[in-house]
Amino acid sequence: MTTLTAYKKHLQEIGKLESAISLLHWDQRTYLPQKGLAARALVLGKLARIAFELLVSDKLGHYLEELETQDDLSLEEQASIRVVGKAYRRHKSIPPDIYEQFTIAQSRSESAWEQAKKTSDFELFRPHLQKMVDFSRQFAQLYGYETNPYDALLEEYEPGMTTEQLRSVIEPLRKKLVPFIKRLREEGTRPRTEILDGTFPIDKQEELSLRVLKAMGYDFSAGRLDTTVHPFTISTGPQDTRVTTRFIGDNLFSGISSTMHEGGHALYGQGIPPELHWSGLDGGASFGIHESQSRMWENMIGKQLPFLKFFQPILASVFPEFAHTRPETLYNALNTVTPSLIRIEADEVTYNLHIMLRFELEEQLINGRISITDLPEVWKDAMKRYLGVVPKDDAHGVLQDVHWSTGMFGYFPSYMLGNLYAAQIFAKVREEIPDLDEQIANGKLVVLLSWLRKQVHRFGKTYEPQELLQRITGERLNPSYFTRYITDKYSQIYKL
Amino acid sequence: MTTLTAYKKHLQEIGKLESAISLLHWDQRTYLPQKGLAARALVLGKLARIAFELLVSDKLGHYLEELETQDDLSLEEQASIRVVGKAYRRHKSIPPDIYEQFTIAQSRSESAWEQAKKTSDFELFRPHLQKMVDFSRQFAQLYGYETNPYDALLEEYEPGMTTEQLRSVIEPLRKKLVPFIKRLREEGTRPRTEILDGTFPIDKQEELSLRVLKAMGYDFSAGRLDTTVHPFTISTGPQDTRVTTRFIGDNLFSGISSTMHEGGHALYGQGIPPELHWSGLDGGASFGIHESQSRMWENMIGKQLPFLKFFQPILASVFPEFAHTRPETLYNALNTVTPSLIRIEADEVTYNLHIMLRFELEEQLINGRISITDLPEVWKDAMKRYLGVVPKDDAHGVLQDVHWSTGMFGYFPSYMLGNLYAAQIFAKVREEIPDLDEQIANGKLVVLLSWLRKQVHRFGKTYEPQELLQRITGERLNPSYFTRYITDKYSQIYKL
Repeated sequence: MTTLTAYKKHLQEIGKLESAISLLHWDQRTYLPQKGLAARALVLGKLARIAFELLVSDKLGHYLEELETQDDLSLEEQASIRVVGKAYRRHKSIPPDIYEQFTIAQSRSESAWEQAKKTSDFELFRPHLQKMVDFSRQFAQLYGYETNPYDALLEEYEPGMTTEQLRSVIEPLRKKLVPFIKRLREEGTRPRTEILDGTFPIDKQEELSLRVLKAMGYDFSAGRLDTTVHPFTISTGPQDTRVTTRFIGDNLFSGISSTMHEGGHALYGQGIPPELHWSGLDGGASFGIHESQSRMWENMIGKQLPFLKFFQPILASVFPEFAHTRPETLYNALNTVTPSLIRIEADEVTYNLHIMLRFELEEQLINGRISITDLPEVWKDAMKRYLGVVPKDDAHGVLQDVHWSTGMFGYFPSYMLGNLYAAQIFAKVREEIPDLDEQIANGKLVVLLSWLRKQVHRFGKTYEPQELLQRITGERLNPSYFTRYITDKYSQIYKL
Repeated sequence: MTTLTAYKKHLQEIGKLESAISLLHWDQRTYLPQKGLAARALVLGKLARIAFELLVSDKLGHYLEELETQDDLSLEEQASIRVVGKAYRRHKSIPPDIYEQFTIAQSRSESAWEQAKKTSDFELFRPHLQKMVDFSRQFAQLYGYETNPYDALLEEYEPGMTTEQLRSVIEPLRKKLVPFIKRLREEGTRPRTEILDGTFPIDKQEELSLRVLKAMGYDFSAGRLDTTVHPFTISTGPQDTRVTTRFIGDNLFSGISSTMHEGGHALYGQGIPPELHWSGLDGGASFGIHESQSRMWENMIGKQLPFLKFFQPILASVFPEFAHTRPETLYNALNTVTPSLIRIEADEVTYNLHIMLRFELEEQLINGRISITDLPEVWKDAMKRYLGVVPKDDAHGVLQDVHWSTGMFGYFPSYMLGNLYAAQIFAKVREEIPDLDEQIANGKLVVLLSWLRKQVHRFGKTYEPQELLQRITGERLNPSYFTRYITDKYSQIYKL
């Protein structure tokens, strides 16, 4: 067996364990009965440990060392060695004991956060959050970085991205968004939204979601749709990428948006070609690129007029009360802008401001420039600066998101990058498919899918995000596509 | 760490892997999308291999060796060492390469069987079945036995049972059943069954099944109900025992019976006390004892008048067409006797004859006294002798069951033993709960559950099946309880 074959075989062994782990996670968040939770954590811990040991094994280290100097490898093989080598070195840099302490602390911290959020009691969460920050700072040192320890964490979610680059994107974006939101509120005409009011039986909502997913080109023989509390998409194996969504009885489009968002992620997962399965490249190029796919389907398709023209008759066939609703009425009602407290409920105009705030705070936390004790107050100040609203309690403020409770510092920027990437890629889509709107209005959503398959999905992690973006759009990250998209769309809707 | 502690810890590691494997199996048979199947087999193979390696590890061998001579162990600890020691030695006796060849051949054989059954083409399956028989004969030699190699296989499913004992039970049973069935057909009055005709929406059938499971005392916070093609029950972890069932649109009681059958298995699983979890004792005493629980709930509760008195108003609340149905009418209609071709559709009177036939044939196969080529004809002859009916094709004959395709020789007798154990245990239940019928009629099904918890479930595998039966009923296996139960019940229904 050549080293390359042995290396690929080793990755497959890791892949098999990761598939099992993913299924255990999927089940935990969909069907696991409550009393099964305690044992499930132990089972997951065991498999994660086996996978970890395979990833940091000396065997893999030797393979990588040898292959990194080999010059007859294909593009994909080189990419695999880059991606796996990075993961190997990052994991290897953390002493196993510290990693084990971290995973135990993580699980306690997440439980404490859940409790703290429920009772809006930051003090309950504070010592755990302190530990998560301390671990993350320690990891940043162990991973290594050039100028800012936060870069070392960012690398996990958005390879190649730096704090400096983020700042250079955020500042001009904020300078456009904040006054634009002000203009919308002060000079614009807010659309009426009564058309969305009503009660919508869950089984009928599910039927609608299934039809939309199908129209998007989602392959139900390689996935499925289930419901959960916090929707997610997961590949529980090659050729098995599952969508979950959430239906709310009195908010019909919440479920449809959630399904289209997760469907966007899932199409990416289903679009990874078989030759990349279990190769280390079978995933999105980055969290940001993944999010670009979900946000594109959710907002740039789902909340646009062409899609709503196609969708309205389907909607009316399931909910006859929409029989005489004009697509334009739906379009306007679905696209209102309201600075609000909760990130996951934010509209696409204000959403990025929620992210900027989190980036600002977590970058300071990792650099030790703000203390955990001050965090709730710092949060409120920042909310006022970015969005002009201030939470009455911490449940609607600093405690609202799960990410920090498990030490996922560096994750939030992916959400913003996803929006920016989506707009930049979608501009290219429009250029290359001139009759896109007409096709979408005719229900031919798969023209978009085919394009994304060819330009984005099929590469998996072969290219780093900025490189991929350059290949797709001919330029690196350029936030002006997003601001143009937002100002065009909402100026029209708000009759500015 | 003492050896005992290290031993228990090692079993927990195996238990965690087995929990993961069980969930992967559960998912494969309920929710896995079709294209995910190929990778799932690889994932399962990987985890099974890790579990196998833990089970045959020298470390475990040393623990067992040391603990087997230790004399200060509790009853449960001794039992654990007996059960785990036996599994260790059995698995250790098979060279890993042969075991791997076997698992690969198993998977191919099962696929070939599926295809062969679909097209009723025994020739397609023949070479695979030959391999399964050859492997099983080889395993029997490796496991070791005293007089009959079949005993070595039987031991897997029914510890302590032998071919000789089975014969001593089967012969008198057959001599009573065959003429009794003849009498029912020739002298009895077959009840009318039109009351069962109709079409019954699946969602309403599911509602009924959920209510019945609940009444049985099934804990939905430690399990769930899903649907599948071939119903099964599985513990995917401690405190997580899941039921699956199957609903047929025009056969209402098929689904209810299936749910009560699987519910009986599941109550056993949920009744294993926490101190036995992941100890090697967390399962049924044997496949036969497990089956006694499912058959008791399915037949001795579900198809009896007291339960039907309780059930009829529930049934009528879901299906108003049963509003004026007398429980007695249901009782008679649900208990007709028809010698038929398919085991899983057989009534409780003829069922055991299907098993006797399989036992006779597989015992001869393992002893090389019949050839695979002759099997379809031998099957037909035996059907004629036991049941008086002959299948037109092999799909309705020798190809009907999955068991042999994966080499599960020695499994079938458990089904018969389950029926016999159930009758014997149920006679004891009647003795100790004199007002059982009244309680059941009042919906107090949990009086039975409480009794079973105390007498059967809480021991797990602590006792071998015959020992457990002796403790529960005061005697070893005695098939006369079953013949009495059957003749009493059906003489009355058929007005003999």
